[in-house]
Amino acid sequence: MMDEIRLIEVKEDILSDNKGLADRLRADLKKSRTFLMNLMSSPGAGKTTFILATLAALKSTLRIGVIEADIDSMVDAERVARAGVTAIQLRTGGFCHLDAAMVAKGLEALDLSLLDLVIIENVGNLVCPAEFDTGAVKNVMILSVPEGDDKPLKYPLMFSVCDVLIVNKIDYLPLSDFDLAAMRERVLKLNPGIKIFEVSAKNGTGIEAWTSWLVQEASAFIDR
Amino acid sequence: MMDEIRLIEVKEDILSDNKGLADRLRADLKKSRTFLMNLMSSPGAGKTTFILATLAALKSTLRIGVIEADIDSMVDAERVARAGVTAIQLRTGGFCHLDAAMVAKGLEALDLSLLDLVIIENVGNLVCPAEFDTGAVKNVMILSVPEGDDKPLKYPLMFSVCDVLIVNKIDYLPLSDFDLAAMRERVLKLNPGIKIFEVSAKNGTGIEAWTSWLVQEASAFIDR
Repeated sequence: MMDEIRLIEVKEDILSDNKGLADRLRADLKKSRTFLMNLMSSPGAGKTTFILATLAALKSTLRIGVIEADIDSMVDAERVARAGVTAIQLRTGGFCHLDAAMVAKGLEALDLSLLDLVIIENVGNLVCPAEFDTGAVKNVMILSVPEGDDKPLKYPLMFSVCDVLIVNKIDYLPLSDFDLAAMRERVLKLNPGIKIFEVSAKNGTGIEAWTSWLVQEASAFIDR
Repeated sequence: MMDEIRLIEVKEDILSDNKGLADRLRADLKKSRTFLMNLMSSPGAGKTTFILATLAALKSTLRIGVIEADIDSMVDAERVARAGVTAIQLRTGGFCHLDAAMVAKGLEALDLSLLDLVIIENVGNLVCPAEFDTGAVKNVMILSVPEGDDKPLKYPLMFSVCDVLIVNKIDYLPLSDFDLAAMRERVLKLNPGIKIFEVSAKNGTGIEAWTSWLVQEASAFIDR
């Protein structure tokens, strides 16, 4: 089943007060009882595959929508729509991150009264998206094993602003010299409160622990 | 042997004419007979390991310096210096790319009269660095197999501005559904003149073909 895709061209409004708008978005989301999660990572860390695994686990429990951001192309939104979930494609036309105004446009295109959870797939970038509050209730990042265990040293802001770190592609561990313990130590030094899940979005390892956490957080926010 | 590392803090000069400065840098490099190469990729695609493999193959043939850019940390410059090659660390303090002014500062810190080749390791990012001419004679990018074969669709500018595409981590191919033929077709559609090398920087596969090309290009520029 191929669900509907909508395409929105977005431009950065440099005059807007991003933080203020993000706070207003969160207040609106609370009113409409919709949990907004912002997913960030490098290009190719597996954001779309991880979202698809999350949708497969949760789409009978929660009503979910997805906002896909890409500089160009609609391939990710098409993959989500094929999974039977409404996807909004934000085409950033060169911008390297989403801000709250762009997300607001995506949310306007969804009927929030019908959704419990909206997942934003941000532009693949470990730098710029970390600087912009999107209005999300929780920020989640993916670090994939092939990227290496030194990334917290090089992109500290991203690891600092996230509530959750998904260590993806753990099926690559046998081929890799990725040191899980060293990576954990580096991340926890930057962000002692971060929650870490080790998963393989491709084969499903660890997805249940992650989605249990997500359901719990979303329910707490929605029922508040 | 641990060679010298210098640390330079760089800030973006938004008033400068980046393209004009980049052209002046290239003219200066021609005079000093130094070939400047700009290496770009996502975080974790293997830039530093690829540079180390290139240095190991070429450091008895060419006099080489490396400019490392990172938002924070000096780990990459330290790895290069341990290989016995002079490394300049540019700390961008949050900036997501290098521009020509930042590279000029790095080049000022090197004695170009003693160098045939300078390699810039740009910030790990498939978006922003593609927009800024650094003054390099050739732009080289890495796409690593675990990132996926769809990246040319999502980050078209980066694939369009590069002279060379290094497909790295080909030792991961057996574990992956990466479609080399599909990726090549997507890249060549964007950039028919791009040169493609398949390598594993980790085990050395394909490095000789790449370094032969680099020596040829550098020699042509230096002798011109």
